[in-house]
Amino acid sequence: MSYLNQITSPTLLLDEKICRHNLQKMAEKAKRHQMKLVPHFKTAQSHQVGKWAKEYGITEITVSSIKMAEYFCGHGWENIHIAFPFNPLETKKLNELAKNQSLSVQLINVEVTEKLAKELEYPVGFFIEIDAGYGRTGVEVTDFGLMEAIMRAAKSSDKLIFKGFYLHAGHTYYEPDKKAVYEQTKAALSMLKNKYRTEYPGLVTRTGDTPGCSVMEDFGDIDEMGPGNFVFYDIMQVNLGSCSMEDVAVALAVPVVDIKKDRKEILVHGGGVHLAKDVLTEPDGSKNFGEVVYLGENGWTIPLQRSYLKSISQEHGIIKASDELLARVKVGDVLGILPIHSCMTADCMGSYLTLDGEVIDHVEQNTKN
Amino acid sequence: MSYLNQITSPTLLLDEKICRHNLQKMAEKAKRHQMKLVPHFKTAQSHQVGKWAKEYGITEITVSSIKMAEYFCGHGWENIHIAFPFNPLETKKLNELAKNQSLSVQLINVEVTEKLAKELEYPVGFFIEIDAGYGRTGVEVTDFGLMEAIMRAAKSSDKLIFKGFYLHAGHTYYEPDKKAVYEQTKAALSMLKNKYRTEYPGLVTRTGDTPGCSVMEDFGDIDEMGPGNFVFYDIMQVNLGSCSMEDVAVALAVPVVDIKKDRKEILVHGGGVHLAKDVLTEPDGSKNFGEVVYLGENGWTIPLQRSYLKSISQEHGIIKASDELLARVKVGDVLGILPIHSCMTADCMGSYLTLDGEVIDHVEQNTKN
Repeated sequence: MSYLNQITSPTLLLDEKICRHNLQKMAEKAKRHQMKLVPHFKTAQSHQVGKWAKEYGITEITVSSIKMAEYFCGHGWENIHIAFPFNPLETKKLNELAKNQSLSVQLINVEVTEKLAKELEYPVGFFIEIDAGYGRTGVEVTDFGLMEAIMRAAKSSDKLIFKGFYLHAGHTYYEPDKKAVYEQTKAALSMLKNKYRTEYPGLVTRTGDTPGCSVMEDFGDIDEMGPGNFVFYDIMQVNLGSCSMEDVAVALAVPVVDIKKDRKEILVHGGGVHLAKDVLTEPDGSKNFGEVVYLGENGWTIPLQRSYLKSISQEHGIIKASDELLARVKVGDVLGILPIHSCMTADCMGSYLTLDGEVIDHVEQNTKN
Repeated sequence: MSYLNQITSPTLLLDEKICRHNLQKMAEKAKRHQMKLVPHFKTAQSHQVGKWAKEYGITEITVSSIKMAEYFCGHGWENIHIAFPFNPLETKKLNELAKNQSLSVQLINVEVTEKLAKELEYPVGFFIEIDAGYGRTGVEVTDFGLMEAIMRAAKSSDKLIFKGFYLHAGHTYYEPDKKAVYEQTKAALSMLKNKYRTEYPGLVTRTGDTPGCSVMEDFGDIDEMGPGNFVFYDIMQVNLGSCSMEDVAVALAVPVVDIKKDRKEILVHGGGVHLAKDVLTEPDGSKNFGEVVYLGENGWTIPLQRSYLKSISQEHGIIKASDELLARVKVGDVLGILPIHSCMTADCMGSYLTLDGEVIDHVEQNTKN
């Protein structure tokens, strides 16, 4: 039976072939640059995708919360890195998990470092997160005083082990000149490595944004990369030039419930609770909440004439339809929507259906935090 | 033990007292206007909140998908209305549920009506949804040809029972002049009732937006109201004038992980996967993803000096902090965030914690569609 016959309501489709291709390509790129790929699993949040990743030599992963780390504990990962400034309220849980799983965390202030130094019962690694300059989080790259205070606080414990510096160059999402962003990133991490490697000979540096890791070919002496979104990609990444539309590995299948030919609009069951509300702006100023693809027995195909979701509410989506789409669609059909931001869509949906009709796991909502 | 001691990660708090107050107020308003209140449970998605609603005389509810209907089936509701243009792929599931539960659906085209007329095995009511003029969905209010074609198609079955007209006046969310919107809504529904009540003496009319139901005091001869958001309200509703900030019944509890006093910024664990990405724009052009409240033993209090979430990513939130907040907060504290759009936040979080420390149910993610 085709996967298509299983769909009666909004369902997140995952094309294993595309996903494996994305994993393989990034693994090869990392290898080519003598870097370790530690993919961020906040995107897929899935053991099954983890199994595929292992086939391409991936042995460590990154996650964004301790509950996500818990989900992956005991599934054969050499290390799980929690890439979020450590939340001191979760020290007890960290101790529980660190008993049986190699973990690392991110530190950006002395208060939390001191607490961990005092309360850790098992060895845990840590990266100092460096503010990439777009002000989300981290220690400013020239604030050596703070970095050294964190290192000092950690030294009072034999459980808290300094691993290196982590810099998420997230401004590649906004900056058209990704090369310039990477020059800064490389220079900052290289400077820090040289400054501290006499004291910490094993220290490594890591960066991790999908746009940069996808398009750059010069990573300088950065040791590790931790992109997340690349396993699925999405329309935002297509627009950023990270990938082509053919590389997007997930599509939300949505039932068609009404067609207004005169307005060239199609009403589908698929809205903010399925896709999330990430949005792009079309050149004509209209909004784009996702790109229509046609579903067939072997997956989806990209239309010659574009159609896209021009508005969504909690459960409704309205497609601005091309003539091509209007000529072939009828009420009761199922269309595919390539999401604007696949990490958020996957998080909303909480499971996947493969093109073989298999349901694939995703971290469950109630346990995600 | 205080509910506060249970929080180590982002948690959606529900203040039962405020929620009951909102339910009671709307129930009294409906009664005052001789209308039936059929609240939309896409907001709370919770049996426990349903139990509270029953104490205020509420006997029927509205939902937005068949999976949500399934969740509430068999829990003592006299009728569950699925307020979404019926998806014909779910006819089999509708038959399963209708065997033991009184249900109604919404119809807006002949194709789906004919399919239901042919395939329904148990009685199911239906409303014809009228396009409120903002073009989301429904039959245009003057398209009597289409309305009558739907009625005719339904008549070929003794299972498909016409109940009346449903008009979601959702443009009260955009139109500053809600009274003008309601004049149109009342006039449209009254016209339709008068036109068809000779043929269908029992037909009723229903409208259902929270801004309108909250502020209007003249509903003309509309029979039923089905607002949803009012059970919790949120900052968007505060801004629309539907309620005051004291009426918001849910707050996302978020751990403080870093403080940048010089920038007046506080980093919390709480982002798009918790709050969703609904956003308001401040008068100075900055973005607002949620309003800070202080948590105490008995719930939350609204600060004298405002602080709000100025940016979020998947898991991170950055608060633009007042001097008052900066003076009292420390790393490891937990703050509250009143959401911009509570329906979406509740859907992201998938459960609630009451101020008594009880975990309350919400439709589960994997079964939500």
